[in-house]
Amino acid sequence: MSTAVNLAEIARRRYTTKAFDPSRTIPAETMEQLRTLLRFAPSSVNSQPWHFVIASSEPGKALVAQGTQGNFAYNAPKVMRASHVVVLCARTELGDEHLTAVLNQEDADGRFATPEAKAGQANSRGGYVKLHREIGDTAVWAQKQVYLALGELLLGAAALGLDACPMEGFDPAAVNAALGLNSRGLSAVVLVALGYHAEEDFNAKLPKSRLPAAAVISEI
Amino acid sequence: MSTAVNLAEIARRRYTTKAFDPSRTIPAETMEQLRTLLRFAPSSVNSQPWHFVIASSEPGKALVAQGTQGNFAYNAPKVMRASHVVVLCARTELGDEHLTAVLNQEDADGRFATPEAKAGQANSRGGYVKLHREIGDTAVWAQKQVYLALGELLLGAAALGLDACPMEGFDPAAVNAALGLNSRGLSAVVLVALGYHAEEDFNAKLPKSRLPAAAVISEI
Repeated sequence: MSTAVNLAEIARRRYTTKAFDPSRTIPAETMEQLRTLLRFAPSSVNSQPWHFVIASSEPGKALVAQGTQGNFAYNAPKVMRASHVVVLCARTELGDEHLTAVLNQEDADGRFATPEAKAGQANSRGGYVKLHREIGDTAVWAQKQVYLALGELLLGAAALGLDACPMEGFDPAAVNAALGLNSRGLSAVVLVALGYHAEEDFNAKLPKSRLPAAAVISEI
Repeated sequence: MSTAVNLAEIARRRYTTKAFDPSRTIPAETMEQLRTLLRFAPSSVNSQPWHFVIASSEPGKALVAQGTQGNFAYNAPKVMRASHVVVLCARTELGDEHLTAVLNQEDADGRFATPEAKAGQANSRGGYVKLHREIGDTAVWAQKQVYLALGELLLGAAALGLDACPMEGFDPAAVNAALGLNSRGLSAVVLVALGYHAEEDFNAKLPKSRLPAAAVISEI
């Protein structure tokens, strides 16, 4: 691979697009790359406590835009004019049914040479899940994993030459209702509009700003 | 760029390394790429509510390993035998001093054409910060941004041909004490050991497992 030179460049170049060109659509093969990226994103104890709703149709985007009304209306054009909008959702609980599905999938994928290895993995993951249940932060723990996937999605999109706009500024309850997420044990955590920036995107012309390296990185 | 073909491959190929080869060190230029990636990672309202401690010396890694004792001893060898260990830290508060530093940096970097633009940005970011202060979840909000950076770091490391082991299994209080993080307004959130896997890394030989696409992705 020859990404050695490009990675820092990609990181420096990517930025939050504030206006999308509604005439441009992400190629199917590029979206397929992002789907693979999301599906194969890592999560604590392989819990995969997430679901990703990808809206690309006008009605689909309109459903997502039900979460960008009122105080969040400034984000509605990003949802409606982007090529694709990903609703990154977290599980609100990590129930036994989900844990069994993950374990059986690992088994089917060939990760356990022996029944003991399978039982060991169930115990190990179960121990962490129990810990979070006892602390009472299972939902937050799941949301953090979703942010991990968000990081991969944003870097991946930039590497594929896409523009992106991550949005916390929306009403999760409205999106949950519009997409029927709660009944599936899910809640919307963050939105990412994906596509190509419009000519009028002021943020494309502004320099990126970050604190100096010394302020955010220490070496020991 | 020609990452179009490689991104899904990278995502499928990367895995959590369980044993590092202590004889191999990450080249300086590769670490510099990762530093840039971390520094330029996006965060909500550009809050950059984080700090990254990179341990590469033996004494540095030994300090981090103070967090991998007792119940977490299984992670100590990853910390001690990896080439580099990144301690991803979140700010425990987003105080006015930090917000002013970010704003002045944006100003110095040329993002504001007018004083009004600068005031607008201060108000906009301040509104979100106030919201989280009122809700009382500022620390958790900051931790989520750290997970976003974690996602970029893991994908970036894989793209650069490195092996990685992200770890939630450590004692944050012990790491905070060892590195003097609390007095700097920081708390350790997650560790990432980076380097090259050893021959005996059992996880290198196991197939990766993920839930089927239909279970984690919906299209609308």
